Amino acid sequence: MSIADTANNNPYEDDFPTQKAILGMDMPMRLDCGAELSNFSIAYETYGTLNADKSNAILVTHALTGDQFVAGVNPVTGKAGWWSIMVGPGKPIDTDRYFVICTNVLGGCMGTSGPAAVNPETNEPWGVDFPVITIGDMVRAQALLLDEMGIETLFSVVGGSMGGMQALEWAAAYPERVFSCVPIATAATHSAQNIAFYEVGRQAIMADPDWCDGHYLKAGKKPRSGVSVARMAAHITYMSEAALTQKFGRRLQDREKVTFGFEADFQIESYLRHQGNSFVERFDANSYLYVTRAMDYFDLATTHGSGRLADVFKGTEIRFCVVSFSSDWHYLPEESRVIVRGLTGAGANVSYVDVVSDKGHDAFLLEEPAFERVMRGFLEDAARKRGLIDE
Amino acid sequence: MSIADTANNNPYEDDFPTQKAILGMDMPMRLDCGAELSNFSIAYETYGTLNADKSNAILVTHALTGDQFVAGVNPVTGKAGWWSIMVGPGKPIDTDRYFVICTNVLGGCMGTSGPAAVNPETNEPWGVDFPVITIGDMVRAQALLLDEMGIETLFSVVGGSMGGMQALEWAAAYPERVFSCVPIATAATHSAQNIAFYEVGRQAIMADPDWCDGHYLKAGKKPRSGVSVARMAAHITYMSEAALTQKFGRRLQDREKVTFGFEADFQIESYLRHQGNSFVERFDANSYLYVTRAMDYFDLATTHGSGRLADVFKGTEIRFCVVSFSSDWHYLPEESRVIVRGLTGAGANVSYVDVVSDKGHDAFLLEEPAFERVMRGFLEDAARKRGLIDE
Repeated sequence: MSIADTANNNPYEDDFPTQKAILGMDMPMRLDCGAELSNFSIAYETYGTLNADKSNAILVTHALTGDQFVAGVNPVTGKAGWWSIMVGPGKPIDTDRYFVICTNVLGGCMGTSGPAAVNPETNEPWGVDFPVITIGDMVRAQALLLDEMGIETLFSVVGGSMGGMQALEWAAAYPERVFSCVPIATAATHSAQNIAFYEVGRQAIMADPDWCDGHYLKAGKKPRSGVSVARMAAHITYMSEAALTQKFGRRLQDREKVTFGFEADFQIESYLRHQGNSFVERFDANSYLYVTRAMDYFDLATTHGSGRLADVFKGTEIRFCVVSFSSDWHYLPEESRVIVRGLTGAGANVSYVDVVSDKGHDAFLLEEPAFERVMRGFLEDAARKRGLIDE
Repeated sequence: MSIADTANNNPYEDDFPTQKAILGMDMPMRLDCGAELSNFSIAYETYGTLNADKSNAILVTHALTGDQFVAGVNPVTGKAGWWSIMVGPGKPIDTDRYFVICTNVLGGCMGTSGPAAVNPETNEPWGVDFPVITIGDMVRAQALLLDEMGIETLFSVVGGSMGGMQALEWAAAYPERVFSCVPIATAATHSAQNIAFYEVGRQAIMADPDWCDGHYLKAGKKPRSGVSVARMAAHITYMSEAALTQKFGRRLQDREKVTFGFEADFQIESYLRHQGNSFVERFDANSYLYVTRAMDYFDLATTHGSGRLADVFKGTEIRFCVVSFSSDWHYLPEESRVIVRGLTGAGANVSYVDVVSDKGHDAFLLEEPAFERVMRGFLEDAARKRGLIDE
């Protein structure tokens, strides 16, 4: 039985239609942890048309809980893709002009191999026997997929949050394969505060008895409460204090007075509970552990250099556009400025925009006209330089 | 069996020596939720000597997880009291001059009646049958204790965080019984973000199967993991991002390389796990629910006025000193400024200091010389006005 046959046993996948490549068949992929992965799946979607010289490909990299359905309609949810504001015909990432690829990250749970997939050696779900992966591993797998597609160089790699980490990793690991790079609302390394928040989530999941020491799928269980609490804790960090106040304040949920109890009296409580409960349905608990761990381990300057970002990117010819959002406290604008200083120190071609927004970290996923203008302008300019648009 | 006899069944108390008053004996205390509480215990400590005209009493009010052992040695932990930096002979809250009282809040678990205490009607631990209490109820119980002590007027009521809410509540509910008031690192109402953080903690506790629907004491259990996760989530909010970076950064715990696993690789992880695990030993899970709920419900302007703080304090003769800390993101300096604007609008006598500190919310508990000078100066000046020091 090959991975391709068994992959549909992944309960988070449910036979939804997505493209899938089986990689590491001739030669296993070496992971940063030292393990090797062979015959693994990368689920992906493409939008637009690859041009004749294969020079118009944009890899969009997704965040922690994102997926490959970046534009159009997500066949699982029936809703718009997670970045359809930004990606589509006539949009800033214009699928009339660019060929957009988005892969579900290694360790994810939307068709790509991860802890919820079946281990071909045991024919049972990997669970926590799946090797721990890094942002570097995610990107290495994406590079193998591009090899399969015959795409040598990306016109751009674009991503927000953990997607921004992948974009930076691409620029560091494959400088010759990247023409331009747009790291958004991200950091070159995970801060203590972010490690802390994700550690709370992991502890919540691992404390849930239904986690079954990581083998809940085998046991036919699901650590629902743990995942829900993890999601609630993380979700708070995605919004600014101002946005929470504006959106919810102290407004009560379907009642005129507090109940003097522990039900969801306040709208913010029922909103968070809903976020937690609905997340359980669409995301694998172990994937949450693996993908947050990959973020914790991300430290670009240490992995690729002497500890200095400027050394990592020395002599790079990639065109960078770094974007932060003023009210983002998950990945602070200062963390983007650290990237910009490193790039500048490396003599790189770098633009930086701190978009004034009160929407917090989530701003990169929401309607922010200034951000859209920056994306469109930067990509159009790069497209001219790349010969995709007549100068 | 009276509450006084059974109170030692509280597993969080373990016979440690503390003073205790049984209140609500002649007349039950009416709670904001509508229930009545009779024969309830208030555990408290005092430091210094009450003067002849009983005009030198300072009530220090504690934060969420604080207790009555504000100074000297905490007999439970054997360590210094939680504010011994601030309270003691020669300290800014000088026990050579002032008579300091600190009570464990109603709903707490250090000897005061709360969900871990025994319900005299059933002779079993209250658990979640204990009525939901408010900051107003906590203060009402403190006022009854002062009645018992024959103290008509407090020279000052001083508290940080939830202690600051109690201080403000005192000023609003008993303006004639308060000469001065020092709300520190607090807010006049709980923000959506803070409700959200505490809701995460409550959900973590209530999701733990060992919570037993709130009756774990009867069942001989303890929701250890839930309480630990709740504490971890809250603890992050007590420190600034800068303090976390400075104290922990990405330093590893007793190892040279990451383990590619889910153990505590990073110091911040093992620190948080330790915070969580040790908290379980000293704090009752249900108390955590009750006391955080009291904070969520706190909304001074709505409870005591038309929704405007200026109306709450109109005509007050209390001398106020409001203190915030620049890097506090749990109770933002802006929330202190809201209090100051309300007081100023009410024509109150108010000083305000935003102490520049990188220590975050916890700064009020830590060594901050500028803060100590402010406290000493404000109290000495008020003491002169009060005739406790010769002008």
